[in-house]
Amino acid sequence: MSMAENFSVDTVPHIEPICTVGPNQSCRHSLVDQELNEFLHIYEELVRSRFSAITDTLKTLSIYQHELDFVTRAQRIAMDHLHYKLPLNLLEDSWVSGLNLRALHSYCIFRSFKECIAKARFDQASWRERNALNTNFLHSCGYHTVNISPCADGRLQGLLSFVLRLVPSEAVYVKAYAGAMFNIEEDITNWAHRELERLTGGLPGDEDRNYLKIAVYHYSSSNPSHEGCAAHGSDNKKAVEAALMRLNELRAAINNTYGRGAAPDILLIGVDTDIDSIRVHIPDVNGDIHSHRFVDSGDLYRESLGMTQEAARMYIADAVTKAECQNGLVHNKGKMAAGMRSLVFGLLEANLSQIEYVIQYHAGRYAVIGHNERFICAGEAMNELHLRNKFYFAHLNTVEEGAIHLDVGIKIFTNLNIKHGLAIPILVHYHYSSRVPGARERVIQRCRRVKAAIEARYSQLHEKGLLYCQIAISDKAGSERCTFIEDEIIEAEH
Amino acid sequence: MSMAENFSVDTVPHIEPICTVGPNQSCRHSLVDQELNEFLHIYEELVRSRFSAITDTLKTLSIYQHELDFVTRAQRIAMDHLHYKLPLNLLEDSWVSGLNLRALHSYCIFRSFKECIAKARFDQASWRERNALNTNFLHSCGYHTVNISPCADGRLQGLLSFVLRLVPSEAVYVKAYAGAMFNIEEDITNWAHRELERLTGGLPGDEDRNYLKIAVYHYSSSNPSHEGCAAHGSDNKKAVEAALMRLNELRAAINNTYGRGAAPDILLIGVDTDIDSIRVHIPDVNGDIHSHRFVDSGDLYRESLGMTQEAARMYIADAVTKAECQNGLVHNKGKMAAGMRSLVFGLLEANLSQIEYVIQYHAGRYAVIGHNERFICAGEAMNELHLRNKFYFAHLNTVEEGAIHLDVGIKIFTNLNIKHGLAIPILVHYHYSSRVPGARERVIQRCRRVKAAIEARYSQLHEKGLLYCQIAISDKAGSERCTFIEDEIIEAEH
Repeated sequence: MSMAENFSVDTVPHIEPICTVGPNQSCRHSLVDQELNEFLHIYEELVRSRFSAITDTLKTLSIYQHELDFVTRAQRIAMDHLHYKLPLNLLEDSWVSGLNLRALHSYCIFRSFKECIAKARFDQASWRERNALNTNFLHSCGYHTVNISPCADGRLQGLLSFVLRLVPSEAVYVKAYAGAMFNIEEDITNWAHRELERLTGGLPGDEDRNYLKIAVYHYSSSNPSHEGCAAHGSDNKKAVEAALMRLNELRAAINNTYGRGAAPDILLIGVDTDIDSIRVHIPDVNGDIHSHRFVDSGDLYRESLGMTQEAARMYIADAVTKAECQNGLVHNKGKMAAGMRSLVFGLLEANLSQIEYVIQYHAGRYAVIGHNERFICAGEAMNELHLRNKFYFAHLNTVEEGAIHLDVGIKIFTNLNIKHGLAIPILVHYHYSSRVPGARERVIQRCRRVKAAIEARYSQLHEKGLLYCQIAISDKAGSERCTFIEDEIIEAEH
Repeated sequence: MSMAENFSVDTVPHIEPICTVGPNQSCRHSLVDQELNEFLHIYEELVRSRFSAITDTLKTLSIYQHELDFVTRAQRIAMDHLHYKLPLNLLEDSWVSGLNLRALHSYCIFRSFKECIAKARFDQASWRERNALNTNFLHSCGYHTVNISPCADGRLQGLLSFVLRLVPSEAVYVKAYAGAMFNIEEDITNWAHRELERLTGGLPGDEDRNYLKIAVYHYSSSNPSHEGCAAHGSDNKKAVEAALMRLNELRAAINNTYGRGAAPDILLIGVDTDIDSIRVHIPDVNGDIHSHRFVDSGDLYRESLGMTQEAARMYIADAVTKAECQNGLVHNKGKMAAGMRSLVFGLLEANLSQIEYVIQYHAGRYAVIGHNERFICAGEAMNELHLRNKFYFAHLNTVEEGAIHLDVGIKIFTNLNIKHGLAIPILVHYHYSSRVPGARERVIQRCRRVKAAIEARYSQLHEKGLLYCQIAISDKAGSERCTFIEDEIIEAEH
């Protein structure tokens, strides 16, 4: 069997390649936005380089740590390779107590992340608004708000911009939970706030639009029983059913409380984290979802490769129609509402670009199919960085409630960092609204409280210097984004 | 100076008595509902007796703990004095290891409390619907919902039924915080949920009514610098200004977020916990409150004593009008809206009954002006028990967020219980909605999580057996009320 030069699956045996072509053919699907993929790839490389340079830079520093002109030399090396200086206090005492490489490593992770945030508008300008599914598209499907709960797994942190090709906006929320087990009571509150905005005219033009809740589970086609969702013991059936149950409970809760018909629409999506293809579980005429009724974008890619755009779109439409008739549902009963249908088409077509992205730039299947996150983000997600395996994200209000999601992260980082002598960097991030008096001070207090709770929960790691927490805040009503709040300021204020 | 026989203030010198009358006169104000006061007094005695019998009963048990027929005798004594049996496991081993009086004491506190909850409908039937300020009254003032945040202090736990004479209903929320420092973000959420119900037709007839937020601070006229609000260091100026600031912040937050005019009305009330008189801070024409513009019901009681109902009502109206012109505000600017005016009158008049209640049944000033709570309630308040000094109530979602409110409670109970060798009983109570699928199981998990967090925070007390936590849940949509969830069930389920 011959393989196209720009992809390879031979490191993972027994898996059907996503793209099989003859000699002189290549994996180029007519519906893929090639230029967008190039932009995304440049962005990915740029962001990765900010993190991947850290280890080598610190190794180099380590060599020179006992030299006379160490501090000057270290700053020059840092500027050359990382493009920022290092804190003096971490360099100056190296001649006596040795370089604190663990502290420097955590510092660099946060500092590189800050670089990504500070330059996000520049870095993302080429592709940010070009992704297929923007606010106008969501509006045309009848939705004013989309609330997405993926798993906290770092491999899903590129979900929005890469896998789903959604343009980030204030109408799109992402709240990750281990196993996609989102908090129903909190979701009711999110929905209620948004619903109130809509009803009081705060979302002009959205008066007749609906709210959509999406749960996103994941699995690994190469190594299903080990690299699937840890929260569900890599049992995909369990992951699908647990997510679906939660979606149904949310619907029932809102219908029972605010009257039948009040509930948001729901959608269930699965991601194969090896190749970033998706399974969209299509709702029936009542909006009900069945765990076996789905369309797989990987199949669609393979089967429609080489077709014209028109023919490929027809093929996708037929596949969806076929799926609608599955499980013995006659066509009328299985048919989605028109808006949902547009959305499902949109998602499936947009994801073809991501499948090809992985083929083009990651040899058809990610080299590291497991965990490779750089830090843990605890609290509320930022729209400024969506990239696979950059961070493990645990949405939480308090450690008391979110401990289970953090524990999974600590377990992952015990393998990734602690085992190699490195500390675990944890970013505690929350939003406030500058429209609410006193909210900025309160959110800083909140961050400090959560930081203290994390340090208390993992006190053994913390006491050994194996845990570094950094606090950051963003304004959801104004322009402040991911401001790092330093401990020095804490002390100065007290 | 002669004193009426049924009150006395001579234990507290230098304080002007609330009721000064000549010979053959008595403290009977024409606007007081005497019969209602009698009903409330019988209720108070009944509830108190369920708790006050505990210590003597246990002392008696202690005498007989080494006798041959101890278990039989103990159960008879318990039935006679407490009207319930004691758990066998706490009695049977007394012959060898001695009676665990600490565990028995906490058991009895919870058991007696359960008795109060189970019999609440019976016990409260005489007065529950007779209180002056019911839902219809609130509606006539233009309010669909009243959300009250008093201090967590146990002396304010009789606020609703006794001090304010408000009929409990699903339109009245009570959420206590140390120092009345309510959580603005949570209040915005409460408001939003209620507003959504109103806008979606869930509150029929309330379409044009408003939401009212009341903060209640407190002070001690007899011992102002020691028995005031602990959270504000018994500094009344601080207590008033802190509560007022929070009310203003809440108003600004909602106006800034949902548009000017969206914010609820606000009201600030002070309670003199020695005599249960109130200070109502009257809003001006814009709804703004000033810390010095208030009417004191104690003054009104004294000054209108002996007047006819009509004359007393005129007198109150004049006093309010006078207060409206305070601080150089011309009458138009200081005048409240008509609905708020009715509410203020209603509160002031209704409180006269409570002032006389304290005169009639507590010698004009409570014998114990300080703390005398029986247990701590952490979580969400129950409508089933409103009585001064029965429990310290800390409203909290998580211990992580509410620790400061709990710490104050633990400090109080260190004096009340630990110093005397007794444990601190803590009831962890939360509501769920049976309309929300899975909510009952989740609320039990939540209770267990909060219980574990309390036991972890006060681990030194817990390890010494000086802390007993009991879990209880209520359904806000159905009929389940304060069901005790036992640890045995926890183990059986795992």
